[in-house]
Amino acid sequence: ALRDALQEENEIDIADFLESLDAEEAAVVFRMLKKEMAAEVFSNLSADTQKVIVDSITDQEIVGIIEDLYVDDAVDALEELPANVVKRILKNAKPETRNLINQFLKYEENTAGSIMTAEFVDLKRGMTVAEAIAHIRRTGEDRETIYTCYVTGPSRVLEGVVTVKELLLSRDDQRIEEIMDDDVICVTTTEDREEVARTLAKYNLLSLPVVDQENRLVGIVTIDDAVEVMEQEATEDFEKMAAMSPSEKPYLKTGVFTMARKRFMWLLVLMVSGMITGGILGQYEAAFASMPLLVTFIPMLTDTGGNAGSQSSTLVIRGMALSEISTKDLFAVMWKEIRVSLIVGIGLGAVNFVRLILTYPGNEMVALTVTLALVATVLIAKTIGGALPILAKFLKADPAIMAAPLITTIVDALSLIIYFTIASHLLPI
Amino acid sequence: ALRDALQEENEIDIADFLESLDAEEAAVVFRMLKKEMAAEVFSNLSADTQKVIVDSITDQEIVGIIEDLYVDDAVDALEELPANVVKRILKNAKPETRNLINQFLKYEENTAGSIMTAEFVDLKRGMTVAEAIAHIRRTGEDRETIYTCYVTGPSRVLEGVVTVKELLLSRDDQRIEEIMDDDVICVTTTEDREEVARTLAKYNLLSLPVVDQENRLVGIVTIDDAVEVMEQEATEDFEKMAAMSPSEKPYLKTGVFTMARKRFMWLLVLMVSGMITGGILGQYEAAFASMPLLVTFIPMLTDTGGNAGSQSSTLVIRGMALSEISTKDLFAVMWKEIRVSLIVGIGLGAVNFVRLILTYPGNEMVALTVTLALVATVLIAKTIGGALPILAKFLKADPAIMAAPLITTIVDALSLIIYFTIASHLLPI
Ligand SMILES: [Mg+2]
Ligand SMILES: [Mg+2]
Ligand SMILES: [Mg+2]
Ligand SMILES: [Mg+2]
Ligand SMILES: [Mg+2]
Ligand SMILES: [Mg+2]
Ligand SMILES: [Mg+2]
Ligand SMILES: [Mg+2]
Ligand SMILES: [Mg+2]
Ligand SMILES: [Mg+2]
Ligand SMILES: [Mg+2]
Ligand SMILES: [Mg+2]
Ligand SMILES: [Mg+2]
Repeated sequence: ALRDALQEENEIDIADFLESLDAEEAAVVFRMLKKEMAAEVFSNLSADTQKVIVDSITDQEIVGIIEDLYVDDAVDALEELPANVVKRILKNAKPETRNLINQFLKYEENTAGSIMTAEFVDLKRGMTVAEAIAHIRRTGEDRETIYTCYVTGPSRVLEGVVTVKELLLSRDDQRIEEIMDDDVICVTTTEDREEVARTLAKYNLLSLPVVDQENRLVGIVTIDDAVEVMEQEATEDFEKMAAMSPSEKPYLKTGVFTMARKRFMWLLVLMVSGMITGGILGQYEAAFASMPLLVTFIPMLTDTGGNAGSQSSTLVIRGMALSEISTKDLFAVMWKEIRVSLIVGIGLGAVNFVRLILTYPGNEMVALTVTLALVATVLIAKTIGGALPILAKFLKADPAIMAAPLITTIVDALSLIIYFTIASHLLPI
Repeated sequence: ALRDALQEENEIDIADFLESLDAEEAAVVFRMLKKEMAAEVFSNLSADTQKVIVDSITDQEIVGIIEDLYVDDAVDALEELPANVVKRILKNAKPETRNLINQFLKYEENTAGSIMTAEFVDLKRGMTVAEAIAHIRRTGEDRETIYTCYVTGPSRVLEGVVTVKELLLSRDDQRIEEIMDDDVICVTTTEDREEVARTLAKYNLLSLPVVDQENRLVGIVTIDDAVEVMEQEATEDFEKMAAMSPSEKPYLKTGVFTMARKRFMWLLVLMVSGMITGGILGQYEAAFASMPLLVTFIPMLTDTGGNAGSQSSTLVIRGMALSEISTKDLFAVMWKEIRVSLIVGIGLGAVNFVRLILTYPGNEMVALTVTLALVATVLIAKTIGGALPILAKFLKADPAIMAAPLITTIVDALSLIIYFTIASHLLPI
């Protein structure tokens, strides 16, 4: 009964179901799946569950699944398995599969090569539309997508692209070369996967061809995998921007020690930097010993600076991730931040001044000191917040590290120096 | 020459080019486009540039473009135009187009209805594969996508789904009802667009059918629009998490005053909250007047608390956006955060203790005070940081507001209370 029910389910729902079972149950249920479904379910499992399955089935069965998988998914699975298991599997696989997998295993992480797959429809420019459609009907079964077909010439050089929609809307006797688009949008195997995903999104493509240095077509990236890259890259940015090392697993499936490790390093670095800020503050001990009231404005001042700076750095980091801002925009960004910060800073300063005059009547100079320090802090925080992510890019670092935590720490130190410098000029300390 | 060069270009690149021109130039270049390209280029322009174009062409030309646009893009364009212009355009449009647009204009923002389009391929269960393919070849031209076809029954009730790949791989004489999948993944018009995008991503779909309350098929959401929603929703989260109102335009195209307005409100709220923290600090004035050294540890303590809390809240907010964490996981999250924070907190505390003993020899009780306050701050920060986004969801608020800025402000106040409470017990103040 379970067996029959399973055949009716969507492969992705079955994979979700397997994830919710313990190892033994998952293995039992997996073996109930029809051969046609097994590979697709397998490709949607987490690396941990894939390992459980691999450990519970015979080498022959593993090889069967590997042969049925698209090569991108096969490679992703093999990358997570122990070397001796991989060797055993590849030894039993068909020579073509083995060669293809060995080739694909070599592409570096985070490149187009690491997310492309090899099962595309390959047409020739001399074919007629009828021949092309017949070709697709004959060979389409094993293709990851048939909707965008690639036209290749001698030694697999990419010459054009034609969609199935164009094929179906053309007359049967038209030649492919008449209807194909020879101005193909494509990337090379070494292109950054984030750039690849952005290209698919920008041009609304369902798949993107990947070529080698000699413009030979070696694979395609399909939109489902590009979507996954976009989500992962956004998650990575969220994590880096909150001072964590990126993690691959969902929150609830990550162990406590792994999580602590991913969070500890940056907290430590920032804590030590905070000690430096403390050292700066220590130099003004005489000032706040003689006027303790000054201390009470420190949290408001440093937090406003941190928040103002993070707003700017967040917008610039996200703008760079979406390719809306590039390094050449450094001065445009700084000029915009200076203007925005003056408006925002003067607005906040005014509210602050009125509030201080009302709360501490007769202390106009304290109110003025805090207000001037606030305006200067917002100005500096936003200018730095806008500039640092771009400067990081110049230095080939990830702009995402120049986010709230680091900006706050830098701005804290600067705002305290500004505050006490102004105080020492305006107040009797 | 420019006219010829334009015909060879991709519509999206032409749209980018138009965006880089000033209003008059853009209008001139737009009029050079062939009629077949004009609508697609128009749909890829920003609202501002669409307005420029609309102002520069005749009502007849506008109506021509509106008729050529897919209804989702037509509605998006009309939503940005002044009411009198919209009225004029609709008056001149064909009755079917007018009715469709009026129907689509009614769907609420951020729902499936607001991002779906109406141009899908509609098959009948009794058709043969050959008839279906012939139907697609006859009517496919105007469809947004032909790759996923929807099978509808009497009064347009959605009965099944079949892909062109399945059609092409089946025998010509097979009936649609034999090969279609009748377990259709679909959403209703009122579903949140973020959920819609997530469904397309999860099931690797190229389009998702949208039905009304009576299960009648009214539209489809295509993957390109889902990708756009995903990017916009992620950007919105980045902005909210950095204490800004979300904006629709790219950074470099947003005016200085708009930008200042989107940033000011939250900064003001947080600044006023920072004043409350200052008030708390004021209550310990006697303590730091008698031992000014205590003040120098405040930035390190509050910033570490803020950073520790933001790490947790960021992971939980992103986990909820990806549907990996739901409200029922509140206690699992808190329990995990408590354990992680103890590991991280004790690690940071140890480093801090050693450093203080070395820097201030003989001041063991100060070192102990700061260290205990640090460990307690990290514990509380992470527990609150993990819990607040989930509690926001319970209260039907956006979890994304429970991010770094607000967490920092809350943790600042708490950490200072903890710090001076411990200090008053351990130190002679
Ligand atoms: Mg890979
Ligand atoms: Mg797009
Ligand atoms: Mg794939
Ligand atoms: Mg995949
Ligand atoms: Mg990356
Ligand atoms: Mg990145
Ligand atoms: Mg819309
Ligand atoms: Mg997917
Ligand atoms: Mg659309
Ligand atoms: Mg669109
Ligand atoms: Mg939303
Ligand atoms: Mg959202
Ligand atoms: Mg702070």
